[in-house]
Formats: sequence, structure tokens, C-alpha cells
Amino acid sequence: MNTISRIPPAVTETRMANALRFLAMDAVEAANSGHPGMPMGMADVATVLFTRFLNIDPGAPEWPDRDRFVLSAGHGSMLLYGLHHLLGYSDMPADELRRFRQLGARTAGHPEYGHALGIETTTGPLGQGIATAVGMALAERMLNARFGDPLVDHWTYVIAGDGCLMEGISQEAIDLAGHLRLGRMIVLWDDNKITIDGATSLSTSTDQPARFNASGWHTVSIDGHDPEAIAAAIDAARADPRPSLIACRTVIGQGAPTKAGSHNVHGAPLGADEIKAAREALDWPHEPFEVPDDIRAAWGAAAGRGARARAAWEGRIGASGRDAEFHAAHSAPDLGDGMAAHKTMLAETRPSMATRKASEAAIEVLAAALPNLAGGSADLTGSNNTRAKSMRPVTADDYSGDYIHYGIREHGMAAAMNGIALHGGLVPYGGTFLAFADYCRPAIRLSALMGKPVIYVMTHDSIGLGEDGPTHQPVETIASLRAMPNLNVFRPADAIETAEAWECALAEPRTPSVLCLSRQNLPTLDRAVTENLTARGAYLLCDPGNRDVTIIATGSEVEVALKAAVQLAADGIAAAVVSAPCFERFASQPPAYRAEVLGTAPRIGVEAAVSQGWAALLGNHSIFVGMTGFGASAPAADLYRHFGITPERVAAAARSLIA
Amino acid sequence: MNTISRIPPAVTETRMANALRFLAMDAVEAANSGHPGMPMGMADVATVLFTRFLNIDPGAPEWPDRDRFVLSAGHGSMLLYGLHHLLGYSDMPADELRRFRQLGARTAGHPEYGHALGIETTTGPLGQGIATAVGMALAERMLNARFGDPLVDHWTYVIAGDGCLMEGISQEAIDLAGHLRLGRMIVLWDDNKITIDGATSLSTSTDQPARFNASGWHTVSIDGHDPEAIAAAIDAARADPRPSLIACRTVIGQGAPTKAGSHNVHGAPLGADEIKAAREALDWPHEPFEVPDDIRAAWGAAAGRGARARAAWEGRIGASGRDAEFHAAHSAPDLGDGMAAHKTMLAETRPSMATRKASEAAIEVLAAALPNLAGGSADLTGSNNTRAKSMRPVTADDYSGDYIHYGIREHGMAAAMNGIALHGGLVPYGGTFLAFADYCRPAIRLSALMGKPVIYVMTHDSIGLGEDGPTHQPVETIASLRAMPNLNVFRPADAIETAEAWECALAEPRTPSVLCLSRQNLPTLDRAVTENLTARGAYLLCDPGNRDVTIIATGSEVEVALKAAVQLAADGIAAAVVSAPCFERFASQPPAYRAEVLGTAPRIGVEAAVSQGWAALLGNHSIFVGMTGFGASAPAADLYRHFGITPERVAAAARSLIA
Repeated sequence: MNTISRIPPAVTETRMANALRFLAMDAVEAANSGHPGMPMGMADVATVLFTRFLNIDPGAPEWPDRDRFVLSAGHGSMLLYGLHHLLGYSDMPADELRRFRQLGARTAGHPEYGHALGIETTTGPLGQGIATAVGMALAERMLNARFGDPLVDHWTYVIAGDGCLMEGISQEAIDLAGHLRLGRMIVLWDDNKITIDGATSLSTSTDQPARFNASGWHTVSIDGHDPEAIAAAIDAARADPRPSLIACRTVIGQGAPTKAGSHNVHGAPLGADEIKAAREALDWPHEPFEVPDDIRAAWGAAAGRGARARAAWEGRIGASGRDAEFHAAHSAPDLGDGMAAHKTMLAETRPSMATRKASEAAIEVLAAALPNLAGGSADLTGSNNTRAKSMRPVTADDYSGDYIHYGIREHGMAAAMNGIALHGGLVPYGGTFLAFADYCRPAIRLSALMGKPVIYVMTHDSIGLGEDGPTHQPVETIASLRAMPNLNVFRPADAIETAEAWECALAEPRTPSVLCLSRQNLPTLDRAVTENLTARGAYLLCDPGNRDVTIIATGSEVEVALKAAVQLAADGIAAAVVSAPCFERFASQPPAYRAEVLGTAPRIGVEAAVSQGWAALLGNHSIFVGMTGFGASAPAADLYRHFGITPERVAAAARSLIA
Repeated sequence: MNTISRIPPAVTETRMANALRFLAMDAVEAANSGHPGMPMGMADVATVLFTRFLNIDPGAPEWPDRDRFVLSAGHGSMLLYGLHHLLGYSDMPADELRRFRQLGARTAGHPEYGHALGIETTTGPLGQGIATAVGMALAERMLNARFGDPLVDHWTYVIAGDGCLMEGISQEAIDLAGHLRLGRMIVLWDDNKITIDGATSLSTSTDQPARFNASGWHTVSIDGHDPEAIAAAIDAARADPRPSLIACRTVIGQGAPTKAGSHNVHGAPLGADEIKAAREALDWPHEPFEVPDDIRAAWGAAAGRGARARAAWEGRIGASGRDAEFHAAHSAPDLGDGMAAHKTMLAETRPSMATRKASEAAIEVLAAALPNLAGGSADLTGSNNTRAKSMRPVTADDYSGDYIHYGIREHGMAAAMNGIALHGGLVPYGGTFLAFADYCRPAIRLSALMGKPVIYVMTHDSIGLGEDGPTHQPVETIASLRAMPNLNVFRPADAIETAEAWECALAEPRTPSVLCLSRQNLPTLDRAVTENLTARGAYLLCDPGNRDVTIIATGSEVEVALKAAVQLAADGIAAAVVSAPCFERFASQPPAYRAEVLGTAPRIGVEAAVSQGWAALLGNHSIFVGMTGFGASAPAADLYRHFGITPERVAAAARSLIA
């Protein structure tokens, strides 16, 4: 591009970027709400990225080999909506921009996955985008190792702000990305030196490029308003085998005559006067939401480049002979017959085993059936029992493995799993201790909000873990997870329910699952395996017919309930026992089934956790036997006695209810 | 020290360290559970630190000017218990070591604050220790700025493992510590190249010293088994104005003849044979838990140094003339009369204001009464309304301020607040959006587990925040916090309840509080302010006498409930309205009071959140009006209508119940 041409070309990248700026100003003004500063500051970077590099096809937003773009600084959503509008996404006409942040509009306050075409992931909670992108970039390399360059060969670009880099999750993300040498991940950092409270110097002194260098990243610093510098930096990033950070020095709100460069432009409308002055200063004599034809055409040309790339890919996959295999990897998992045989074996042999071990046995069966399983653990492989014998680690030198050593990074793991699931082609699961669900809760919430069926294997699920004590004993964790919308929380009672929970989790198209698994051994229940009863959420495990009391329990406490029922039977009291491995599933059963399971007799609930959430299963005439506070450090059996979660206590509660 | 002496001195630091090694081996063996690898690997470092540098007095474990020691790698708890035993803490006789990890023992699996003398903070969840220590080191400087070197002049030492440094929270901690130039914080990193899964090279490639350098830390790398190198490094760290990382290259399980250096020694007993071989190899011909007299005497001498330092400090404070002021800062906050006058003003003027703004008004009153208030926000000062006008920022150049710009680091903020509260002398509170409670939940859990009255100011507490959408709208967050033991969750309905909630939070000696505050304006309720009714947890706001229905609501939905009651009254239906700002407080009220408030009529619960946890207030004959899934992006009023949280809906529910 000849930058010293005496007659400037009608279309420049700066004018294309100004289109983004005015769409952001106008939409925030119309909504009287939103964040104009970031879209205006990063408009030049986004223009160069989208027009010169990014391969996406607005006509086929889910084309598997597209480049991924993640707006980690999700509050700048108008940047993304403006781009999609200009590129011609069918669901992003000007009217949607006019309805920015209004009920039912596609233009939600933050980019919401599934809410509009081409949104790769939900962002807004800071740091999630960059950490999710690590999963996308990792999935790309893992699938590349399986299918080769002709079918899988794309880039993952991230725009991140200061907030994304200050959040701790970013360290987990960059350490993992650097370690796995994810060279196709490029982070464009909006280095504008401004946060909500004011200058970044109020709260940070970190030399970000030096920090990224320390974790094995390539870094470069540029003027984020210079198109050629931006392009050169992206070229250099693509040429480097390491993941790249491009520090883009920008002015927040660039283009706002008086407010640019101030934190006041971060999250509030500019006001009519400032926008009017901007129109004059930038020579933009167009109505709000109006884009001149030459600019629109230039953006359309950029979209055309992606469409041609997709067409070429369609040709390649058609000729590859691996079309069916590729699409199978991107479709719902097919478990085959292995799990049915496995469950039959369990019902016949009835082993005594921890459900974490039962989960390992289930994973062995699944790994044989699912070549695209992507396992892992946050450094608790031997405790979470997450690795099938056949699994090989994924390394920087060999992405063909199927087991990811996520390190001691629960949050980074969960976000990476979101990224893997969003990318498609692989089925991610990962392990940690249930108590540390808290460490990754913001990413679990995004799994649920986005409706991605990520599987969380969370072992050591109660005081039953024993000596490690209250910091490691989940007491409120199960309730806190059950509180979350669109999350299935499974707490299987034995090896069969564990296998069933895995079947359920893998069959879910749009709901993530948490498997809460015991450290301690549990007996295999005496029941038929013809139906997946865990899928029902709760079922009658032991039905004496005309019952006097119903004991409902989950996980390791089902054994306690069964023993209590035996004690009650000795007194002539007929106790039904209900195993309730998944409250969410049970809530969705037909009323008649629920009534049949719950019965009309008084009820006892038993779970080594707080009672919150049990009201859904217990009626007025009921007693809950569980925990009322934090646990303690001692052998598990001592703790169960100490906290009174015993058959004797349950039986006494039953007697008191029916007295 | 002459290391080539032909006749080795009877007592060497290596032998003192070996005492720690055998106590750890023996205790883990006796418990058949625990982590010997870290205590054995870091025994030399701990010995040098405790004998040559650390000023603590086992006879006065809470002496305010003591050095703080944080075992961030809390699984190595036997290192701490061994140290306390050898230093002569009165509650740590050999019998306690023999009862390691048993019910009722002081020697819990992980160090539990308050469970044994001298434990500065609960650790085990990785990364919390180092981040908590930042708060301690910051508190030291802030109090030094107030009271001067003679009264406040101590160090904060941390032993951290690879896990602590891989957790994202560590980045938030080191960025904050480097920015605030907390030169009195020294982290001794157990650089043993081993994690649970195996070599650290499985999951990380970060150059940790380079990473710390990037955030403004002084760093040095040493042989962690060389006492003189350790001492020289600590000397250098103390001489440097920056916070310091000392990378101590160690062998995990040092002293175990065949298992040292392997991840197998991390978290399992060594076994009798290996321990026997270690006794031979290290020339330690003593019974389990036996410490030879010369070694015990040498450790006793180290304790004596701390006792003398304390005595000198007692002399200084006695002579300072600031004894009373110093002790007042370390005692329960005295709010004076300002808050009573403030509440009276509110009851008279009845402003319409967001509870976040009401909280700001309360903070203004508190800041005038409490010179040791330490405010802050995770970069949302103007949104959380957490800063009183008088407050000045704490900076690296001036620690006399009282407002901390924590940056976009919710987790680091919460952990730092734990550290400030544990340190004593200051009253910490900090703000973020309620949805981002998830980002700091592991640290909130430690506030609750340790019983430290940290105050979390969490604004934008429902769909009432409007356009930012579901990522920012807490729907399950309130329930997830109510699930946590020993945490008071306040959701005030107006400015008066907000002031009362602040009074409650500050009066709690051993319970942290979360204040859930609205973004949107709310009317001030028409009620007397003679009693703090929020302290009751719930109260009758509107009592028609012979009630037909009781409507219970919290926060912004109390207004909805009151309007519904008016609509019902027009139909001749007598609706009582209960405001329930704190479920936990209400649960602790006498049964008669609870019965009076709840009444016997059918009940409606109203809260713009999921219903989990409401069973405690609602009986069998009840309806809950709230949320059943995630929110959406739109103006708040549209969302309330969309999700049906309206007076009309509440009134209709009431009619259906009493029909």
C-alpha cells in the first residue's frame, strides 16, 4: 500500500476502521449503555486482522477449518457486532445494531455463544477468552496431528485487554500454551494503559511481554493504530513457532476528540456532542449506522477471501477419503456396545470399588470406543483416575496423544476444555478434587451458559476423603453446583451408576456434567442394568412394597441408607431406599414417575454435605442427615461417626418420623 | 561454619534439619497418610529460616510484631508441626505428632488457622498461602506507616511449591506485591521439579525467576540444601527493596535413600524399610519421634531469640505513648454514634437510591469512625462505590493511605483481605460484581473456614444490572454463597438495611460477610430504626394483622412484594410482607421469633435468583417467584417483566395459593 500517495485512495484501512468506530459509538449511544472505548481503540487492529488474515466465511460460520477469533475483552462486543455487520453475517443487519443490548436482540451486552452467528465463545468474565482460546488452539493441533494439514490448518486469534492479563487465569493459560508450544495462537493485547479505575499504573507494574517471554512466548510491541505495523507483527507472529503476544499500543476511544485516552470512555456512551465532533474530526458525514458503499464493498471483499478458502477446503476434504471419519469426530459420540457389556460384568461380579476407580474402568471402555476422547487432569491423574492405559500425553513435540497434563491449573483446564468443546472434533474431560471446583467455577459457569457438554471428573467428593481435612472436603460444593442452571451434577453410588453417569454425560448435547466421585470403596448395588436408571436421576433401589418411610441418598451414602433399611426391617419398619444420583435429571422426569419414586411416606435424606437443595426431594415431613458445617481431618470412618452420618442415625431419624 | 572440620560439631544445621525429616517420616508413617516429600526437601531451608532469621515467640504466638511464616505448600504440614514441636509450642508435644491426621488432634492434615498455636493461616488449597501473605506484608507496611518502625517492623516469609506458582492466583499476588513494592515479603520456592503427576516438565516450561522479575521482584536461585547459601540468599532478599523470590533447588524427600527425587515420595508414607534405611544413611539412631537433647537444645535457643525480640518490643510499645491506640486498632471496631444518626437521617428523608450507593454512604460514616478501615475494589471503584471521599490510595511510595486498588484480581484481592484480617490492625473490605464472587470463591471459603470477618462488597446483584447480560448477572451466586458454612450473606432492601448490614458485618468476630447490593435505585422502606432489624435476618415489614398470605422477599424484590401487597389489599386479601436480608441470621433466631415472622399463612418467596435455599423460609404451601435459568441482556425493567418478577405475578401467585 502506497502510504505517500498524493491522492489518498478512497478506501483506506483507517476509514474501514472508522466504520467500526462509528458503529460502536452509535450503538452505545442508542442503547445508552455499553463500552465504546475498546472497539474504538482496537478498530485498526481488528480491521487489519479481519481483512488481511482471518479466514472465516460469513456464509458458513461453522466451517470446521475456519480461523477462530476470540474477543476476550468481551465488553467491547460492539467491535465484534460491527465486524459481523460489515462482513455480511445474515443475522447482523443494521437493525440489530440499533437494538444493541435490548431484549431479544442478537447484540447482547457481551458476546454470547449461540446467540448470533460466528460468536466463537461467550466472553465478558475477564481472562476467560484467552484461556478458552488455548483449548481451541490445542484442539487445532491435536486434530491436525490426526487429520493433517489439508483438513486442519487454522489460527486462533485473541483480542485481550489489560483485565484479561491481570486475571490469574491468564497465567495458567499462557503457561500451558507456552509449554505446549501452541504457535498458532496469537494474542493481540489492547495495551491502552487504562482500566476502569483509571491508569493501569494504579494497580500493575508488570512488564507483560517479559512475563509472556518467561513462559515461552514470542512477543512484539507495536503502534496499534499503524496498519502496516499491525500486519508486520501478525506476519512475524505467524512465522514464529511459539505462541505470540502482540502488544498493541492504542489510545482507548481513539477518534473521540476530547474523551480519547481517558477511562471515562471505557464503559459509558460518549454523548451526542462528542459523537458529532468525532464525525467532523474524522470526516464521517454519514448518518448513525450508515456505512458508505465503498467501505461496505471493501469489507465484503474481505469476506470473499474467507469464502474462497472454505470452498478450497471443501474440495480438499471431498478428495481426502477421510470425510466420514472427520465428520464422525465432529458429531455426537457413539459409544458402541462396550459400556453395556461393562455394566453387565459389574452387575455380575459386584466389585467393591471407589467410584473414582469405577470411573477409570468406564474411561477404559470409552477410550476403546471413542478415538476423539481428550482426557486430562489438573495434576491429580493418579488420584482422579482419569487416564486410560492406552492414553498417551499430548506434548509440544507430538500432538497425536490424547491425555493432557493440565498442570496445577484447574481454572485454565476448565476454560481449555470449553475451548476444545467449542472447537469441535474432540470430547474433553478433565479431573480435579471436587473441593477445587471452586477454583474453576467461572469456567464451569461458562460451560453451562454456553451449553457445551464438558465433563468434569471430580473425585474425593466428601468427608470420605478423610485425613486431608476441611480444605479438601467438599461440604457445600455439591449444593453450589446444583444451584447452577444447565449443569448436571452426578453423584453415583457405585460402579454401575458411575458407568451410567458417563453414558449420560456423553449423550448430552447441550449440558455439561460434573461427576462427583468417592475416594473410598463402595459396594456395587444389587440391581438390574437393563435400563440406565441414573438417567432417571433417582430410582427405587429397594422397595419393600407398602413402605413406612423412604430413605433417599446419593453416592457413598446409599450404602448407609441400605444398612439403615436393614436395621429398620429388623424392627418391622418397611423402608424404601431411593438412590438419587442426579437431582437435575430427576426434576425433568414425568410427575407420575417422580411420585412413584418418592412415595407418600415420610422421607429421610442422606448426603455427606449440607442440606441446601434437598428440599426438592424432601417434603414437609422429613429429616436430613448430613453436614451442617465444615469437615475435619481424620480417617474417613471416624469422620462419618463423628458427624453422625451412620446407619444408626438414619434409622433413628426414621423411627422418630413415623413414631 | 567450617564444613571440612575433621571432628564435625555435634550440632549442625543439617542435623537440626534431619530432626524435621524424621518427625515428618515418622508421623506420616504412623498416620499411614500424609506428605513426607516436601518437609524432607525443605527441611534445610526451614532450619536456616527459623534459627537464623524468623522472629517468633512460642510463648506469645500472637505477639503483633512477630514475623509471619506462611506454609503455602500446606500439604507439607508436618514441616510446620515439626518446627513447632522443636521450638517448644506448648500445644505441640510429641503426642500430637503421633496423632497426626487423627480426629481431634492439633496436627490436622493441612495447617488449620486456630487449630494449633502459631498457625498464621489455613493452607492446602494451592496458591492461597502466597496470596494471603501479600495481604500480611501489605498490612505490615500500612501499619508501619501509621505506627513507625519501633512498633511495626517485621517480615513475611512464605514457603511455596510448584503448585502454588502454577495456580493463577499466584500471578495476581505477585503482580500486586511487585507493584506495591512489598520488600518485606520473601518467598522461598521449593524448586524440586516434581508434582503429583511426575516431573514438572510434564506441564510447565515457565522460567519462574524471569516471571517474578517481570513483576518487579528480586530473585535469586540457590542450592536448597546448602545452609550458607540459604542464609546468604535471605540476607540478600532482606537487603533488596523489592519483594524476593528465592528459588531453592531441592530434592523432594531428601534423606530417603531410594525414594528421594521421585513423585512417589510426595504424598504417601515411605514405608518401614525405607525409613529404617534413612535412619542408617543419616546416622539417626533414635526412636520414632525421639529428638536427641543437643538438637532439641539448639532449637530451643532459636526460640529464645524470638522471645528476646518480643520482650524488647514490649518495652518499646510501653515507652511509645501509643499503646492504647495500637491496641485499639487490634481490637473489635468501635463504630461510635455516627451510624445511628445516619440511619435516623435515612428514615426521615427516605431517599431512593441503589444499595451500592447506600453502601457508599455507610462507608463515609464508617471511615470517619474507624481510622483502620482498609477499603478497596478489584478495579470497580466507581461501580462498587467502595471509596469514601477521605480515602487515599495505598501506593509503593506511601503506605499511609487507606484505599487499595487491587486491580482486576478478585481472587488475589480476597486472599489479600484474608491476609490483612489475619495480620490484625486493619479492617479490610473490598468490592467486585456479585457474579464474580466465583472468581474469588476459594478465598471466600478460607475466610469462612478460618472465621475471619472479611467484608465482601458485591454489587450488581441480579438481573437488575440490566444490559451487561447473563455473564454478569448472578442467578445462582446468592444460593451458592448461602450454601457455604459460616458466611453471612446480606441482601439489603434499602439504604437502612444496607447501613444495618454494615453494622452487622463489622460486629462479627468470627464470620465473614457478603453484602449483595443493587445497581438500580430502590425506595427507602417506611420503618423505625430503633432496632437493627437486619441483625434478626428477617422481620415483618408490613403486618396487616390477620394475614391471608405472607410474602417474603430480599433486596430489590422487597419493593415488588410491597406493591403486590397493595394490589392484594385492593382485593381484600391481607398480605404480610417480610424482608429477609440475611437467611443465616434468621436461622439463628429463637423459634418463637421465627414463628411470629413467618406466620401460618401460605407463603410466597420473591428473589431475582434461583429458589435453592428458600426451603428454609417457605413451607409446603408456598410458591417461589424468581429465576429458573440464566438471565439476558436488556434494560432491567424489561428483564423483570420478561422473567415475570413483578407485583402482578406475585399477587397472582398469592391468589392461587389461598383460592
